[in-house]
Amino acid sequence: MTKLSSKDVLRSDQFSKAEIDLIMETARTYEAAVDAGEVLDVMKGKVLSTLFYEPSTRTRLSFETAMLRLGGDVITVAEAKSSSAAKGESLHDTIKTVEGYADVIVLRHPQIGAAKEAAEATDQPVLNAGDGAGQHPTQSLLDLYTILKEQKKVDGLTIALAGDLRNGRTVHSLALLLANYDVRFLFVAPDALRMPTEIVEQVKAAGIDVQETENLSQAICEADVLYMTRIQRERFEDPAEYERLKDAFILRNDALASAKPSLTIMHPLPRVNEIDPDVDAFAGAAYFRQSANGVPIRMALLALVSGRA
Amino acid sequence: MTKLSSKDVLRSDQFSKAEIDLIMETARTYEAAVDAGEVLDVMKGKVLSTLFYEPSTRTRLSFETAMLRLGGDVITVAEAKSSSAAKGESLHDTIKTVEGYADVIVLRHPQIGAAKEAAEATDQPVLNAGDGAGQHPTQSLLDLYTILKEQKKVDGLTIALAGDLRNGRTVHSLALLLANYDVRFLFVAPDALRMPTEIVEQVKAAGIDVQETENLSQAICEADVLYMTRIQRERFEDPAEYERLKDAFILRNDALASAKPSLTIMHPLPRVNEIDPDVDAFAGAAYFRQSANGVPIRMALLALVSGRA
Amino acid sequence: MTKLSSKDVLRSDQFSKAEIDLIMETARTYEAAVDAGEVLDVMKGKVLSTLFYEPSTRTRLSFETAMLRLGGDVITVAEAKSSSAAKGESLHDTIKTVEGYADVIVLRHPQIGAAKEAAEATDQPVLNAGDGAGQHPTQSLLDLYTILKEQKKVDGLTIALAGDLRNGRTVHSLALLLANYDVRFLFVAPDALRMPTEIVEQVKAAGIDVQETENLSQAICEADVLYMTRIQRERFEDPAEYERLKDAFILRNDALASAKPSLTIMHPLPRVNEIDPDVDAFAGAAYFRQSANGVPIRMALLALVSGRA
Repeated sequence: MTKLSSKDVLRSDQFSKAEIDLIMETARTYEAAVDAGEVLDVMKGKVLSTLFYEPSTRTRLSFETAMLRLGGDVITVAEAKSSSAAKGESLHDTIKTVEGYADVIVLRHPQIGAAKEAAEATDQPVLNAGDGAGQHPTQSLLDLYTILKEQKKVDGLTIALAGDLRNGRTVHSLALLLANYDVRFLFVAPDALRMPTEIVEQVKAAGIDVQETENLSQAICEADVLYMTRIQRERFEDPAEYERLKDAFILRNDALASAKPSLTIMHPLPRVNEIDPDVDAFAGAAYFRQSANGVPIRMALLALVSGRA
Repeated sequence: MTKLSSKDVLRSDQFSKAEIDLIMETARTYEAAVDAGEVLDVMKGKVLSTLFYEPSTRTRLSFETAMLRLGGDVITVAEAKSSSAAKGESLHDTIKTVEGYADVIVLRHPQIGAAKEAAEATDQPVLNAGDGAGQHPTQSLLDLYTILKEQKKVDGLTIALAGDLRNGRTVHSLALLLANYDVRFLFVAPDALRMPTEIVEQVKAAGIDVQETENLSQAICEADVLYMTRIQRERFEDPAEYERLKDAFILRNDALASAKPSLTIMHPLPRVNEIDPDVDAFAGAAYFRQSANGVPIRMALLALVSGRA
Repeated sequence: MTKLSSKDVLRSDQFSKAEIDLIMETARTYEAAVDAGEVLDVMKGKVLSTLFYEPSTRTRLSFETAMLRLGGDVITVAEAKSSSAAKGESLHDTIKTVEGYADVIVLRHPQIGAAKEAAEATDQPVLNAGDGAGQHPTQSLLDLYTILKEQKKVDGLTIALAGDLRNGRTVHSLALLLANYDVRFLFVAPDALRMPTEIVEQVKAAGIDVQETENLSQAICEADVLYMTRIQRERFEDPAEYERLKDAFILRNDALASAKPSLTIMHPLPRVNEIDPDVDAFAGAAYFRQSANGVPIRMALLALVSGRA
């Protein structure tokens, strides 16, 4: 049986290609089982602890659903800040305590490196559900899974990442994960919010063709996948620059006239106004399916790190 | 097999008489099974999401218990306000996301019409657990179930609804639901807090005999069922009016001397001071049994909307 | 089958020696079963309600894990303050409501006597998870269980309780529980934070040898078990007194040089700075194992009060 080389899931770039394939295949198997109405007992008798130092309902519910659909149980700290941490306990001590209860730990924390620190404190598997500006590997894996499901392949695709590419943890992780494949990237961002040079360099070093542009309309014409993120006023030093650009980074139906009919539109959610609700009716508007894909991906990860898949 | 005509539970007046009978009968079956110590698996492998945009511990725990006693699982957002909604996500988008995780959704929301909006966003069944000043249909159904259990019938009963009848969502819904039966109503309220005219007219149009009064003592003499609600100082324009009336709307043991021995006393809870704790010892003081009846009623609804009953 | 004489767990001094033995033996059985990977169904079909009027993540998760590992289900009120209580409901009414949902109730409350009040309101078993400055009996039982596991016995041991002995609910309860055994006590505290006279007298009346001291180093040399608690600045009337003493009550590796190699170090957690992290590597540093022991002890109590063990 193939295995993951680490029982922790900390970074989107920790996996070999074979491991990524294993995760995708395992997710597919579980998704098919759930769709067929099967009641699984893969994690029967096991307890997952979710530990959220900042709220993220989407990610928390997705992990909890994954554990429950595998037949396991869940204990929840939806707002860890207001509990032991408030009494001055270190993350290390909290993790050492939770390892006495749970078999797997999912951690969301506002500080970069928190998940790694947690993983070093315990022998139980730790899954990083976002560590501040750091990593959010399960998001990247479900993004990849979504592309595979919507486009039936990844190799050969032109993938546009659009919006705030400077500050977006999500797009950084996804770019690095997709660098395992034979893709072409369009990085679409205002000049002030361009993809960090080190990510661009790392992706190019992997042999990927990268084109940077400010022109979303042009990118839409060429893309097989459009991954939208929001640009926020407070990220701009010059408010006039924000006013000039904001409308160009809102996706509306009219912009899709020149898109490929097979275009897949993705978004990590929540959206505010960066995708007009009219776009939801577009066949390739995949963001809610993308969100739902979090469940089979997290089922796969929970089972794999527990040696149950 | 009889079915509900809609998979959503949004309003207490959405049900036909046959559907109400089905819900009551299904609730009776589940209650008997739980009392007999049976472990049910009606909802095995299914996930309920409770989504509470305002806290209501009683209603949330009751729904969660119902799902667990049916063998199902639960994911909880006890305070939805502090999560995705705070990041600017619309209710529509939140529901589209949760539908990717859960098989059934229970929604509590401060705005009228929120449950309907949620039901329109998703194909999953949505159960309205209270939408502001709007509806709270599962409360009305458990109220009816309680009357049936305590009095062994509904037809022929004199039912007094007392307290703040102007602002009470609970008494509005209950009055409309009971209009399906051959009852007589006593609406007992201060003039400033009378039952809204449209409810009175709607009930009369159904052929129900209605008497409106300010006199709680007189109503207690005649009633088979007394449904108490609280009158609150802030509802009165004239504070002197509140002072004059408040004591008349507090139920104490002495007022029960002239009641029928078989009187059933109900209250949606929580109570503050409108029923004296001494009344709890009265055989017909049914409010805690009423609260417990929320579990079989919600078991019935969860199973019926899921096509599992 | 031996039984507990009460279905409620309210105080650490409510148990006979035979009952304590039963609890320890039951905990051992469940711990072995969990370690062996057995999936238990002792509480299958039963629902536990945790009701926390003040946050205590450690205690709540430990109880919830215990119930889940017994095959039961859980409904949670992690912050009861913000719910029905906020609407003016009495503890009595809240308990009467929850008894309609759950089969067992775990209560954490800031007021002394709250657990007793809750137990009097309901026929369901109530387990006290801490009532203010009052009792925290399940903590004392897991402390005893830890001593038994670490030292293989209790009789004959020299047990040092150190730190703030005046205000520590934990050390009071533990002292009274250990008075059932043939131990020797060292009470190690600054003069301002000495063990209350009534506890000292009660323990002596049970025939226990007690020595009181301010000298932690000396106590470490003699002890088989060292139970550390934190001394807090705000407990001292004279800040200079706190400054003089605080360093003497921080445990560091150098102080362990003169300890018995078999010394067991305990702490109720969370710790802030009263045990240096370097001490964690000491073989007898048992505080995280102690915390984990909360699960089998609470499994035993849940099953015993429910008549399932």
